[in-house]
Amino acid sequence: MDRNIPDFIEGYGEVKRTGNLFDRALLKETAGRNVRMYEPGHNKMRESIAEVLREIDLKDGATVSFHHHLRNGDFVLNLVMSEIEKMGLKDITVAASSIFPCHEILVRLIDNGTVTGIKTAYMSGPVACAVSEGRLKNPAVLMTHGGRARSIMEGETHIDAAFIAAPGCDRLGNINGVTGKAACGALGYAIADAEYADKVVAITDDIVDYPLYPQEIKQNVVDYVVKVDSIGDPKGIVSGTTQVTKDPVGLKIASDTMKVLAASGLLKEGFSFQTGAGGISLAVAKELETWMKKNEIKGSFVSGGITGYIVNMMEEGLFKALYDVQCFDLEAVRSYRENRNHLPMSADLYGNPHNSGCVTNDLDIVILGATEVDLNFNVNVTTGSDGRIMGGSGGHADTAAGAKLTVIVSKLFSARTPLIKDHVTTLTTPGKTVDVIVTERGTAVNPLRQDLIEQFKKKNLPFMTIEELKEVSDRFTGTPNPVKTDDKIVAISQYRDGSVSDVIRKVIK
Amino acid sequence: MDRNIPDFIEGYGEVKRTGNLFDRALLKETAGRNVRMYEPGHNKMRESIAEVLREIDLKDGATVSFHHHLRNGDFVLNLVMSEIEKMGLKDITVAASSIFPCHEILVRLIDNGTVTGIKTAYMSGPVACAVSEGRLKNPAVLMTHGGRARSIMEGETHIDAAFIAAPGCDRLGNINGVTGKAACGALGYAIADAEYADKVVAITDDIVDYPLYPQEIKQNVVDYVVKVDSIGDPKGIVSGTTQVTKDPVGLKIASDTMKVLAASGLLKEGFSFQTGAGGISLAVAKELETWMKKNEIKGSFVSGGITGYIVNMMEEGLFKALYDVQCFDLEAVRSYRENRNHLPMSADLYGNPHNSGCVTNDLDIVILGATEVDLNFNVNVTTGSDGRIMGGSGGHADTAAGAKLTVIVSKLFSARTPLIKDHVTTLTTPGKTVDVIVTERGTAVNPLRQDLIEQFKKKNLPFMTIEELKEVSDRFTGTPNPVKTDDKIVAISQYRDGSVSDVIRKVIK
Repeated sequence: MDRNIPDFIEGYGEVKRTGNLFDRALLKETAGRNVRMYEPGHNKMRESIAEVLREIDLKDGATVSFHHHLRNGDFVLNLVMSEIEKMGLKDITVAASSIFPCHEILVRLIDNGTVTGIKTAYMSGPVACAVSEGRLKNPAVLMTHGGRARSIMEGETHIDAAFIAAPGCDRLGNINGVTGKAACGALGYAIADAEYADKVVAITDDIVDYPLYPQEIKQNVVDYVVKVDSIGDPKGIVSGTTQVTKDPVGLKIASDTMKVLAASGLLKEGFSFQTGAGGISLAVAKELETWMKKNEIKGSFVSGGITGYIVNMMEEGLFKALYDVQCFDLEAVRSYRENRNHLPMSADLYGNPHNSGCVTNDLDIVILGATEVDLNFNVNVTTGSDGRIMGGSGGHADTAAGAKLTVIVSKLFSARTPLIKDHVTTLTTPGKTVDVIVTERGTAVNPLRQDLIEQFKKKNLPFMTIEELKEVSDRFTGTPNPVKTDDKIVAISQYRDGSVSDVIRKVIK
Repeated sequence: MDRNIPDFIEGYGEVKRTGNLFDRALLKETAGRNVRMYEPGHNKMRESIAEVLREIDLKDGATVSFHHHLRNGDFVLNLVMSEIEKMGLKDITVAASSIFPCHEILVRLIDNGTVTGIKTAYMSGPVACAVSEGRLKNPAVLMTHGGRARSIMEGETHIDAAFIAAPGCDRLGNINGVTGKAACGALGYAIADAEYADKVVAITDDIVDYPLYPQEIKQNVVDYVVKVDSIGDPKGIVSGTTQVTKDPVGLKIASDTMKVLAASGLLKEGFSFQTGAGGISLAVAKELETWMKKNEIKGSFVSGGITGYIVNMMEEGLFKALYDVQCFDLEAVRSYRENRNHLPMSADLYGNPHNSGCVTNDLDIVILGATEVDLNFNVNVTTGSDGRIMGGSGGHADTAAGAKLTVIVSKLFSARTPLIKDHVTTLTTPGKTVDVIVTERGTAVNPLRQDLIEQFKKKNLPFMTIEELKEVSDRFTGTPNPVKTDDKIVAISQYRDGSVSDVIRKVIK
């Protein structure tokens, strides 16, 4: 399908369409970094965010960055952006690794011209809604987690000032995410910001005696430290525990997924695995745990956002190590603090295609969700079926590109909205990186993977074509009306290498 | 004194003389890095160093780099350089963090034109001797440890290929120094090389199952992995234990140094400290240990190369943490492997003046040695009194510049060679960064430190001027004959900021 992507987009620039997934023409040298010099005994502590902003001398048109490890409990983006609003700055680009409902303040800043650009790997809630309605001046750029690190490192996203929420911090700006009242675990999405921004500001509510340890971000890249009352609401930061689904439909999908994994031939000693924090994804992990114990197979690593369920598998000895870019629950935070084989992983190490080898490149199996899938196995996790932005790739496109086996697990429809469509509303993850779709009413295999099809036949594992699966679905839901959009491009779905996989247009209500 | 430094040096270029120690005119942006891209499943393992060299396509005139964490037991530099010789490459610059007697092979490579440049922070043995004799085509550049990281990061030293001796390694190039038969501890001097070289090659004798942990250098910067029989001789890598001196003269110096520290007013709760691995330096640590216990004062951190003696003080709770750039003995390696508060420290974090705050900038007290000191407190640790190169700054100039109190501990003369001279043979560390000289026959205080002089008077601590101390010394040794040199510049003593503190001329035998 022609995604109807123009060659030039106002407020974005020239467009290179996503083609070859490993396109050398897109490689750039990494950006240089401005160096600074402070004399011995230099004091980095400042009284307030306002004082830092004045000292940095932030200008109209600047790009400021934030990480999302405090998730929907984050106070830092709001604290900084409301100071920026007070200063009367205009035309600011917010490069936040993700944007959540708690960041609703941005809607006002979009409407009053303080913020005219957004670059992020995921957004949901009122800000995503405002962008979908065309209220942001420039198109929002939706990146992958690995692509965001790449974009920063290659200078496409030049950050004037990075504001790093720091659960644990000392007076010289050594930072971790495992101490303090806002402990959130790994800080993988903040590393590129800390290493490439012109100025780096640690914002903390917990200054410990120097030196803080462990140190995930170190003082040699941090310029200012500000103590505030609270950087986040623990209730929104991590859930107590993430849970395996109890829904029988979800359990059926997980059980069928396990059969796919077993038939794939990849479950050998030392295999690697990634799954999400959702109920079905965790149910797959549970199935896998049982299978590994029964078959006495041990894996090498699990990567990604890490949950207590995965920690438990590692602590039982089923996996040698965890590569953690963000902790999803308190058990994961606890393990990240205690276990030497629970390893930090920057977004660069996780999924940047332009380095000497990211972790996703070595992944055997990834289990992912989807909002929509089309007949070419293209996946949408960016927009809802109403055309509004409600997510973004995060690590979806990164892991799909790297893993030997990418399995989408999803119900075939929910509330009469079908999973499988002729065309996805937004192309987030290219179909050639997606291998199998498992639903409660059948499993479809990408015809590009004849090797898998052969394996499934050999093991008598039932599967169908995606067209057949769509027919099953259509009997229940009918064909939904297409989303009505006008010409205005409100956001760009950028593939991990910096090319454009799709554009998102303004929804007509 | 005019150090007689020309404005332009053939084989080096324009000279900026060391002036202001924090000269903003010398700041540069960091260099960009060439990015690479490998497809999923890419194999980094190669059969031999020769195979890697062919694949990298190294050219005449290239710069190759090495770290010195295997010290005088290192095999890796020799293995790589002999392959480079076999390939017939010419005009190679060796950017090794230090060069030891075990690297004697370089003398042949210098003489046959394979190697025409050397950049290092320290050199001793036959290679230093050959350089002193003017056999290397271009002047060797002697850097500080922090300055070497700066030079690499700012692109002054562009590394075509970094060869990283890797005591522990996995198939994707994750590296540490704490596992394997050549375990050497921290790898602080290899970090800038790994992050900025065009190609990074891990050379190991111990491939472990993926993923290796802990990871000091990660796979996202490593391009090739080669397994060889042995990367080093454990006997030359670390000593069993480093020892406090038993020499009464050394013990007297240590005891008098302790009085200086106590009088300085710096020994307060949370103070920081660095000392070397030599016998007198360790005797100072022992005095300090006793004082801290008696006075119930605890420190924050000890930095630098770390010894078992310092580990013991940390494990007793006298210091909160250690910042370790290299481990000097097996006890330090053991602690670095086990203790979470024994922290890794890159050379950049250690002493680079051009970042957001190096550890030396926050150091209260450093204890250093000296070969010569002049009447302006300038220190030479680069050349012997015969004018031959036998060392280099290492971290000497970095720590002196950063610490609030820099104390030189040394015998006043040894074998009729005096410590104090009218002019140092080579100016390694500028006198304005040196505060006190403690010898067995008296203590001299830099007149720039009137505050210290006042403190010493208040505490009735005896001290003298450096001229007085020189008079004492001259009575024993007489004034030695000046070293005879010709005009040829054989090496450059580069200050940490990239300026030139001195030149070293060819010795006339």
